[in-house]
Amino acid sequence: MSLCPSLPAENVRYVEQLLAKCHALGLVIKGESSEAVTHIAVTLQPMRIPREEFTALAQLQTLWNEMVDNTARNFEFVRDALRDTAESDAGFTGKLVEMLEKVYLGDEPYQHLMLGIFRTDYMHDSRPCEGNEETCVSQWKNVEINTISCSFAGLSPVVTNFHSHVMAYLRLLQGASPWVKNNITNGNDYGYGKNISVADLTEDHTSMLEESISGRAVPEALAAAVQAWTYQQQFDSVRAHYQRKAMLTPSGTEGEMSNLFTSPVVLFVTQEFERNTADQYALSSELLETHGILSIFRTLRELHKTMQLCDNAITGQPPLALVDGRHPVAVVYFRSTYAPADFPTEEFWNTRLALERSSAIKCPSVPHHLACRSTLEDPPFKKMQQLLCDVERVLIPVAFKGNKEKALQLRRHFMSQHSLNPNEVGAAKVEEIIQKVLERPEQFVLKPQREGGGNLLSGSRMVEALKVTKERDLNTYNKIRREYIVMSRICYPVQTGSILARGGVVQLEKNMCSEVGIFGTILSGSKGTCNKDSGSGEVLLNAFSGYTVRSKPANVDDGGVIAGVAALDSLLLV
Amino acid sequence: MSLCPSLPAENVRYVEQLLAKCHALGLVIKGESSEAVTHIAVTLQPMRIPREEFTALAQLQTLWNEMVDNTARNFEFVRDALRDTAESDAGFTGKLVEMLEKVYLGDEPYQHLMLGIFRTDYMHDSRPCEGNEETCVSQWKNVEINTISCSFAGLSPVVTNFHSHVMAYLRLLQGASPWVKNNITNGNDYGYGKNISVADLTEDHTSMLEESISGRAVPEALAAAVQAWTYQQQFDSVRAHYQRKAMLTPSGTEGEMSNLFTSPVVLFVTQEFERNTADQYALSSELLETHGILSIFRTLRELHKTMQLCDNAITGQPPLALVDGRHPVAVVYFRSTYAPADFPTEEFWNTRLALERSSAIKCPSVPHHLACRSTLEDPPFKKMQQLLCDVERVLIPVAFKGNKEKALQLRRHFMSQHSLNPNEVGAAKVEEIIQKVLERPEQFVLKPQREGGGNLLSGSRMVEALKVTKERDLNTYNKIRREYIVMSRICYPVQTGSILARGGVVQLEKNMCSEVGIFGTILSGSKGTCNKDSGSGEVLLNAFSGYTVRSKPANVDDGGVIAGVAALDSLLLV
Repeated sequence: MSLCPSLPAENVRYVEQLLAKCHALGLVIKGESSEAVTHIAVTLQPMRIPREEFTALAQLQTLWNEMVDNTARNFEFVRDALRDTAESDAGFTGKLVEMLEKVYLGDEPYQHLMLGIFRTDYMHDSRPCEGNEETCVSQWKNVEINTISCSFAGLSPVVTNFHSHVMAYLRLLQGASPWVKNNITNGNDYGYGKNISVADLTEDHTSMLEESISGRAVPEALAAAVQAWTYQQQFDSVRAHYQRKAMLTPSGTEGEMSNLFTSPVVLFVTQEFERNTADQYALSSELLETHGILSIFRTLRELHKTMQLCDNAITGQPPLALVDGRHPVAVVYFRSTYAPADFPTEEFWNTRLALERSSAIKCPSVPHHLACRSTLEDPPFKKMQQLLCDVERVLIPVAFKGNKEKALQLRRHFMSQHSLNPNEVGAAKVEEIIQKVLERPEQFVLKPQREGGGNLLSGSRMVEALKVTKERDLNTYNKIRREYIVMSRICYPVQTGSILARGGVVQLEKNMCSEVGIFGTILSGSKGTCNKDSGSGEVLLNAFSGYTVRSKPANVDDGGVIAGVAALDSLLLV
Repeated sequence: MSLCPSLPAENVRYVEQLLAKCHALGLVIKGESSEAVTHIAVTLQPMRIPREEFTALAQLQTLWNEMVDNTARNFEFVRDALRDTAESDAGFTGKLVEMLEKVYLGDEPYQHLMLGIFRTDYMHDSRPCEGNEETCVSQWKNVEINTISCSFAGLSPVVTNFHSHVMAYLRLLQGASPWVKNNITNGNDYGYGKNISVADLTEDHTSMLEESISGRAVPEALAAAVQAWTYQQQFDSVRAHYQRKAMLTPSGTEGEMSNLFTSPVVLFVTQEFERNTADQYALSSELLETHGILSIFRTLRELHKTMQLCDNAITGQPPLALVDGRHPVAVVYFRSTYAPADFPTEEFWNTRLALERSSAIKCPSVPHHLACRSTLEDPPFKKMQQLLCDVERVLIPVAFKGNKEKALQLRRHFMSQHSLNPNEVGAAKVEEIIQKVLERPEQFVLKPQREGGGNLLSGSRMVEALKVTKERDLNTYNKIRREYIVMSRICYPVQTGSILARGGVVQLEKNMCSEVGIFGTILSGSKGTCNKDSGSGEVLLNAFSGYTVRSKPANVDDGGVIAGVAALDSLLLV
């Protein structure tokens, strides 16, 4: 907290106004008790980004969507790719792969339609950009692509409103307060980052604030899936079938018949003690108010007791998932089940399997979930990340079905990886790379290539490992060259900025870094009945769906927005 | 809490969705800690009111504004009217009357411009309406008119959004849930009240929801006052004057000159531990975002240390109020100072007086504050209520400057009062009234006429008092006839409805009553300099400014929305 000491009352009042605006906009997270909420951590100034670069990243998103969808729908590829991982991580990857085999490689009909709500996260590599715009765009390096439970589509649009308010507020206070002066520095010269220039305040630059469309676009995708399901499942006939059945049972009275089921719902599968509920309810609210679609929120524990699978009235379709005996589930939207802790007992896995087997469209399906590309150390994702980096053998043929041009467009956003195996690239090339790493060790890491192949090495431990000679320790020398690859680190810019967190303002002096997440939605599969031989690759929707930015102290590795470490942010296009 | 026992998980989920919507809309109040907020109490269904009646009440509001403004500006009348009260309630009324004399009946120039943000509260008298529409409208009986710190102008518009959401939600759940069925009853036949009919849900009646304009109209009035002040005070010249002065002092450096003062601000004078901050910040936010006007929030305690009165650079004007040495105060908006507890020491009164003496436009000024008509038992307001009921001697000549027609339009909304003094109305009339009261005691109260004249009598105690005969107790018999008047009680309808309060849903079975508050704003006085002889009655703005509805259990007398007893409500025009 670096507030101006000479104006104690006023500084508290500044912060109060900022907090009040968060509360007015619903930028909140659940607190300890069920009623109370606190503000979510948020920056006080938007992040600057050149308009062309933002547009380019937005346009690129449909390719990421396509990459995941194509890879996922190659069920045999996913199964084979994860065979080793499934063995070494039997409790999680193993269970998911088992589900893939049971549902998608078995004999029963399954739901071909799959909905993806993905988020591709980038950081900017600030090494000087060499000339043409294409190169500049490609300096946005992919950190990971998330295919399950991508947060902040609901709340991100609101951050623009918050920043617009803060800018108007600072504009009026401008110059009159040392605290404000401390928060205004000259804009830097390369257009990125956190600094708000005096010009941003003097003139009204709020029109350059880019509101994320995720609050509308993500529910739109969910709504499109509900519609596709209702058509595919011939829901009116199904409902009529069950009405007739109910009329034959003694408990049914004629007056109640028309209301046996609600209209098809989106089932949000949530974690037990979820705090980021505001973000989820923002999507649910939009579904209700704009699309007239009901959402219900349930944990796996609740579903175990209240969900049933009903034989489908239409032949050849997977069973209907029905919650509380009256909510037919059109879409299952997972905001949980991405971590081992979400499955404390076997019952939870059974419920997860029942959902996968049902006729509901899953978001994500198990194949979409597994086809994730992530730098996270979680086993399946690390493996996929590695495979998708293999342009010739995986990215082009599997992820883009042979379309090299598309594959190379994405490839530019991967951090470069270099083999250290002389058999693959030649001894001279290996020594050249090692020299490069030893000159600038801060720009690289050593990454194990295989399951159980050891830990990531960086800094002095990496330098030490690379300096080992054949003569000194042949074993280690060979191990390094066989089992590790060199990966470039993203040299992201470190900025100065302020965040509102835990009820106070925290100044980050040259200590803030930002990650831009681009949302994408894809709905693919066959609209027809789910026979084994029905087409499965039709793309009904593939779209850029908004963005989110999270900024955090550059010197802190762990902790997200909900933990109060990172803060929600917005974009200002320059 | 009357939720359906057979569906435990789902009921909790219903409530969660409602709470989430409150949080998303900023329908919150401050909790114990500075960061946490909880939802504000709110009903689950709007209140029905015939469109013509709402329109009539809206149109009437300018007359209430006029009544208060005319009465208040007759400073001698207010002083004389409150002379007795000021004596018996020296600590509060006495202090305010003293301020009235010092500032408005003294020799110094004072600010002629006054801003009123009033709220006229009504309840509906449900005794059968006799024919023409005019009579129906007049069944809306005035409970009180508030002239200071009228709450909920900021939050009320949002309740319409909340009700629209709840209606859409219930529409989708309709029929499928016993809990919902319990919340839907047939609309009653006279058009008022809480019940939502099945038709309201089946068809989309959200277009009949009337969003209160108070969130825009009240800040508009504050902005109009800032503009009038800036013009009247020739603020640019004043600022230039102080810039020049500052340049002569050694601490001033030329570069900082242009930022010596912020633009003129609205000063919100708040209570020490205010919980209803969301309502206040909603107005401040609108001032900032729509009008580009800065608001600052201060308690009297803070102002005592940080506010100074500066000799005005323009001759003949009261002194400029300056906060923190750089916020020139154009308008003081009191959201406190209405209760004795707001003034723990003499210093607080001194600060209040300094504000009244300053050039800032007060909302309300001491005269506006004192000219309140209220049934509250607070001394000055009770006295004014009584005086303004005197149509011939006060309402027509003072409040409406002789305009009988206007006076009678308002008079219809007063509850009838009857003298028991045989000298005033004749013995026969007195006995007739007493008979009426004894027949239906629940419809009347006995009200003391004078200061310190005893307590309100109702029910069996009233009946007992009226049955006293001359023979049995001459003293009491005479006292009743000299010191009390009979006042009709409002027979408001008692409805069935639900409110969301303290994190749960409370069903009120034939136990909910509602009070409709109509906001009005008036800006009056002379735009010229504040010489003693400048005109003071010019009306620059006089407008209806939205509404608020509060509903509460009919069997609970005390407790407002912030206490969690009453709940914010909205109107559905039928």
